[in-house]
Parts: sequence; C-alpha cells; structure tokens
Amino acid sequence: LGLLAETGLVFISDSRTNAGIDDVGTYTKMFSFGVSKERTIVILTSGNLSITQAVLSLVEEDIDNAAPESLHSLPTMYAIARYLGKKNREIMALDKDILSCSNIAYDCRLIVGGQIKGHEPALYLIYAEGNSIRATPETPFLQIGETKYGKTILDRAFRFDTGLDSAARCAIISMDATMRSNLSVGPPIDIAVYYKDSFELRHKRRFPERAPFLIKFRRQWEQELQEVVTRMPMVPWDE
Amino acid sequence: LGLLAETGLVFISDSRTNAGIDDVGTYTKMFSFGVSKERTIVILTSGNLSITQAVLSLVEEDIDNAAPESLHSLPTMYAIARYLGKKNREIMALDKDILSCSNIAYDCRLIVGGQIKGHEPALYLIYAEGNSIRATPETPFLQIGETKYGKTILDRAFRFDTGLDSAARCAIISMDATMRSNLSVGPPIDIAVYYKDSFELRHKRRFPERAPFLIKFRRQWEQELQEVVTRMPMVPWDE
Repeated sequence: LGLLAETGLVFISDSRTNAGIDDVGTYTKMFSFGVSKERTIVILTSGNLSITQAVLSLVEEDIDNAAPESLHSLPTMYAIARYLGKKNREIMALDKDILSCSNIAYDCRLIVGGQIKGHEPALYLIYAEGNSIRATPETPFLQIGETKYGKTILDRAFRFDTGLDSAARCAIISMDATMRSNLSVGPPIDIAVYYKDSFELRHKRRFPERAPFLIKFRRQWEQELQEVVTRMPMVPWDE
Repeated sequence: LGLLAETGLVFISDSRTNAGIDDVGTYTKMFSFGVSKERTIVILTSGNLSITQAVLSLVEEDIDNAAPESLHSLPTMYAIARYLGKKNREIMALDKDILSCSNIAYDCRLIVGGQIKGHEPALYLIYAEGNSIRATPETPFLQIGETKYGKTILDRAFRFDTGLDSAARCAIISMDATMRSNLSVGPPIDIAVYYKDSFELRHKRRFPERAPFLIKFRRQWEQELQEVVTRMPMVPWDE
C-alpha cells in the first residue's frame, strides 16, 4: 500500500509469500533506493516471488553497473515507472509462456513512489503488463496484492490532506485489517514515511508479529471500533 | 450477511444485480417465510439472478401446494438447509451445462436463518453445489456475494454475545463499507432482526439510497473513524 499526501508519502507492506497454504515463506516486499539529498525511491512488490525477485535483480544490476537508465539516473518518477514497466516486460518475455503452460499466471504488480529533486513526490502502480497508473489528490492511495479488506478504512479516513502521522496510522489499520481476515498476508510489517523535500527515508521500521506496538495498536483499535458501534444511531424500525 | 447472536438473528442484503457494469438492476435479495407462533425463516440470495429466482420459485411452489417438504413443514433448520440445497441441485441439473457452454458460472449461494418451535435459532450458508455450513458461536456470521470489504468490521466488533441492537448496527456498517468500495453492491438495503423465541419477524425495513437514517449513519461513522485514527498510538520510529 502506498499513500500520497500533501506532505509526503507512506509505504507499508507485509512479508508473507505462499505457494498454497502449506508452503509459506517470509520475504520483505519493500525496497528503498536513493541518492542522498537528490532522490528517494521506494518500491513495493506483489505477485509471483520469482518474478518480483527477477525484476528487482535487473533494477539492482543497472544501479551497480551505473547504467544510463537506472533508479539513480532517470530524470522523473514517470520515467522510473516506465523503466520498471520495461523491466517487467523483459521478465515477462522470458517467463510468461512457460508459466502459462503450467497454468501459473504471470503475476507481478509494483508500487513505486518517491521524489526527485526539482519535482513533486509521486506514486505509481505498475501492472504486470508494464503499463502504470498514478495516484492523484482525488484518489491518493494505491494498493497491490490483497486489496479489499484494507480498502474500507482508507476510503473513510485517508485523504490527500491527511497528515503523515495519521496517514501512517491509517496504513497500519489497513494492513492489520488485511492480516486479520486473510492468511496470505502476514508479518513482519515494513512501514516507511517519506517527508516531502527531505530526500531521505527518515522513518522506516519493521514490526514482527509480536511487536508490543502492534499488539497495543490492535487491541486499542478493536476496543475503539466496538465503542463506536454502540454510539452509532439505532435503526429506526418504526418510522 | 447473516449474524447469529445469543438473543436472535440479523439479516441484511443489498438489491443490486448487474450483468456487466452497463446493465444494472434492482431486485430484493431477502425473502421471509413463516407460520405464526411456530416458525420464522429468512432467505438471502446471491449469484446469478435467473438461478436464485428459479430456486425461490420452487420454494414458493412447494408452500403454495402444501407439499410434504416445504419451508412450512420441514421439522428443523438443518432439514431446511438440506431442502434448499436440493432445490439448488435441481436448477443446477437444468441449467449448469448450458450456462457453461456460454462460459457463465453456475453461481448461487443462499443464506437461510430462522427458528422452528422447540429448536434454537440457526443460520446456514448453502453453496451452489447444495452442501451447506452452519454459523456457530465461535464463527457467528456468514456472508455471500461480495464478502471482503464488509468482513473486517465483523471480525473486530461482532461476537455471539453482542446484543441485537449493536449487531444490527454492525450489519449496516458492514454493508455500507461494501457499497462504498464496490459498485456491484447497491441500495436499497433490506435489514431484518429476529428475536429468539418470538416466532415473528418484528423488525424489518428497507432503506433507499437517500434514506435520512443511512445518510446520518454514514456521516457519523466516517467522522468517528477519522477521530479514532487520531487517538491511535503513534508509530514509534525511534525505539
């Protein structure tokens, strides 16, 4: 999940991968890149692990080789979204047909967000096919992976003008709702906040399942929700 | 959505049907049956409208013909769940193969709940294949149709020992969350509450889209959620 706010960006991801319910693994899905005081970029991944790892390998190679096109050299976030789409298409050309033969979908969606000096922060979702869409003040968040459980709180409580502290809390509520209701989403949780014009990822943390903060957060959220329910208007049966 | 509580049952359904996004209709998905002072039964439907209407036609015919097996004569809620499964299989035998030829899934899930004198209230979900599962105090709600958006509030705020007033409010929150996030779910909303051992459906209402109650309810829910977010613990970046 990526959130675009007036004052910056919030990123959150879980770490569960699974091939069926009896083959569960832990891999981070958040990757950060940057050039100090010049650009900060965060990538989130979803879909088939072999594909997302392959895409990330190409991205890292280009940085290591100081390629003409890389996350460290491309001039805009749009160019970076296009570039990631191209990498996705390269892996698709290698793997899609043979995966199809085994009835495995070519499944890879990325979120990329960040800021390059001289430009506003931006947030993109890149589809498996390599095309992309961009978050706007009107629709200021993008989700990949298991999106439905976590969407309702964002529709109600997150807007472009929400402060980053509350945006981070919305992100945790959204992710925690998804973990609670769907076994394919699981801890540790990675969360990062980028403050506009800082050109560094000042706030980044990983919370394991039993992190005291997460336990306290969950308990309070559940209690607050139960209390809100009791304050809601009664159904007017007799009107 | 059907909720099983210690003191009774709550049912809620939307009224939207769609065949693609440009062919949207309004049909109730809640049907109530009963014999005064002896039994009350509510059926909710989801899936292909031609199938659910066909199943309901068979059910109504059996009542009209005072058939040996009908909602008015079967001795237990389990027998009623089996009976509805059988009706589902009858329609499946008529329609499934030819629907498959047009790549249309045989899609019909029902929720049935109620109480027959001498027995506890019960709530069942009947699959397209005719088999069924039952709600229990441990897992006291059942959903059909678009289930994900509306599940998170129930996981957090509804339990078997929740009172029926709060259960009804949870049901509205759940349905409203689903309507907000998914176009295939839409008003009017039908809601009914059955009080254990009453053997009548005392509370039943339909709320159209612009019902003042729904508008007020939604606005308050959104405000309360936004306020809860600001009360949640801050992310401890520096621990």
